[in-house]
Amino acid sequence: MERIESIQNKQVKEWKKLLTRKGRKKQDRYLIEGLHLVEEALKSSSEIETLIIREDKRDDYAALIERYATAAVIVTEEIAEALSDAVTDQGILTVIKNQESQDLIKGEKPVLLLDEVQDPGNLGTLIRTADAAGFEGVIIGKGSVDLYNPKALRSAQGSHFHLSILHDDLEKWISRFKDNGLPVYGTALDERAVSYRTIEPQEQFALIVGNEGNGVDPKILEQTTENLYIPIKGQAESLNVAIAASVLMFSLYV
Amino acid sequence: MERIESIQNKQVKEWKKLLTRKGRKKQDRYLIEGLHLVEEALKSSSEIETLIIREDKRDDYAALIERYATAAVIVTEEIAEALSDAVTDQGILTVIKNQESQDLIKGEKPVLLLDEVQDPGNLGTLIRTADAAGFEGVIIGKGSVDLYNPKALRSAQGSHFHLSILHDDLEKWISRFKDNGLPVYGTALDERAVSYRTIEPQEQFALIVGNEGNGVDPKILEQTTENLYIPIKGQAESLNVAIAASVLMFSLYV
Repeated sequence: MERIESIQNKQVKEWKKLLTRKGRKKQDRYLIEGLHLVEEALKSSSEIETLIIREDKRDDYAALIERYATAAVIVTEEIAEALSDAVTDQGILTVIKNQESQDLIKGEKPVLLLDEVQDPGNLGTLIRTADAAGFEGVIIGKGSVDLYNPKALRSAQGSHFHLSILHDDLEKWISRFKDNGLPVYGTALDERAVSYRTIEPQEQFALIVGNEGNGVDPKILEQTTENLYIPIKGQAESLNVAIAASVLMFSLYV
Repeated sequence: MERIESIQNKQVKEWKKLLTRKGRKKQDRYLIEGLHLVEEALKSSSEIETLIIREDKRDDYAALIERYATAAVIVTEEIAEALSDAVTDQGILTVIKNQESQDLIKGEKPVLLLDEVQDPGNLGTLIRTADAAGFEGVIIGKGSVDLYNPKALRSAQGSHFHLSILHDDLEKWISRFKDNGLPVYGTALDERAVSYRTIEPQEQFALIVGNEGNGVDPKILEQTTENLYIPIKGQAESLNVAIAASVLMFSLYV
C-alpha cells in the first residue's frame, strides 16, 4: 500500500487542486471527506479512485483499507489537513471520478432545476430534500455553485449518490421536458404566477428554483409551462430557497 | 447625545454581556445589529432602549440619530467591533428590552413549538418560515438555543418582530392547547405516527418539531393529540428540521 509523506508530492498537489472548482473541472474528479460520505460513496456505483487515510487512523479504518487495498493510500497529518475542508477532519477522504451522464435523467419522476443558487449549504440541502421527496434528479445550471464544493457535499449528506445530478444548461432541459410533454414549473412572485395550491399533485414534472436574492432568471420564466408562487400570509418578505423548494416538491409530487 | 470612547466604560461592559445567553437572561435585554434588523425593530412595538452608532457611520445614519436622539449613543470603532457578532459589521446596533408575554399566544392561529432545536440558523429559519406561513407564534422550549443568539436573529431576518415568541415550558403549553380543544401535533418516525398527508388543513393547531439529531422528546410525544411523519420516498435518512417543519406548516394550515 502506498504511503505519502511529503506535502510536495506531485499526487498531493493534484489532490489539493480538487478543493477548487477549476481543479475539479480540469481533472473531472472530486474529493469527499468523512466516514459517512465515504461509506455512501462505497455503497454507490461511483468509481472510487483513491481512498486516503491519515496515518493515525490506520487502525480505525483497517477493514476499509483491507477491502480497498489497491486504492488505499496512507498520508501524514500535514497532508490530510491540507486536503480537508471540514472543521472536524476525520482523517478519511476519497477521490471520485465524475460520472455525470445526460442519459441518467429521463423525467420518469420529477426533476429539480437550480438556477444560480449561490450558497453551498442551500445547494446541499436542496439535493438532500429532493432525494427525500423521491425526485429522479437535480440539474444544476451554469451560474450555480457546484455540487462538488466541499460545503455543498457536506450539506447533501450523501444524497447526491442517491439521485442523478447534472451540471448543465437549464434551457436545453426545459425544451427537452416540454418536447416530451412534461410540465415545467418556474417559481416567481409576479402577476403571471399562480399559487402552487391550485396545481394538482402529479407523477412527472420539472420544477425550477432560483437565486437567493433574485429568484429565477426572467428569461427562463418565459420558457416554462407555468410559474408558481407560495402565498405568504405573514410579514416575512420571502422564503429561503431551500424552504420554498421543499414546500413545492412535497406538495406537487403525488 | 452621548459619546463613549473607552472600551472599559461600564455601559459597554454591560452591553458586551448581552452577547452571552446568561447576560441576556440577567439583564432581560438583547442586542440586534445591522440596518435591516434595526429598522424592523423600530417599526415594531419593541422598546428600543439604546441606538448604538459607530462614529464613522454618523452621517449615514443621521436621520435615524435625529429621530431617536434620546436613545442614540456614538461609539468608537473598537467598541462597535467588540459588540458585533457579524462578519460585516454595519456600525449600527440597538439594545432592546425583552417583552415576552404569555398573553400574546392565544392559539387563534397555528403555533409552532420547538423542542431542543440546537442550531441557531435552523431556529432563525423556523421563525422566518412560521412568519411566512402566517403562524401566530413560536414557543421555544427549555433545551433549545435562544432566539436572541446573534446568529439566530440574523437567520430570522426580523420575523421575530412579526409574531409572538416565547421561551417557555412546552408541556405547560401542550396541556393548555389541549384544554382549549386545539389539536397538538408532534412529529415522529415511529409506528405510532401517521402521515401528515392524512390530516386535513385547519385553522388552529399546535405543531411540535424537535432536536436535529433526536427529534422530539418521547415524553412530549406521549402528550400530543397525534404524531405525524413525512413519508420519505428516496434514500435520504431524514430531513433537516427547518425543512420538515416548513413542509408541515404550509400543508397543515388552511
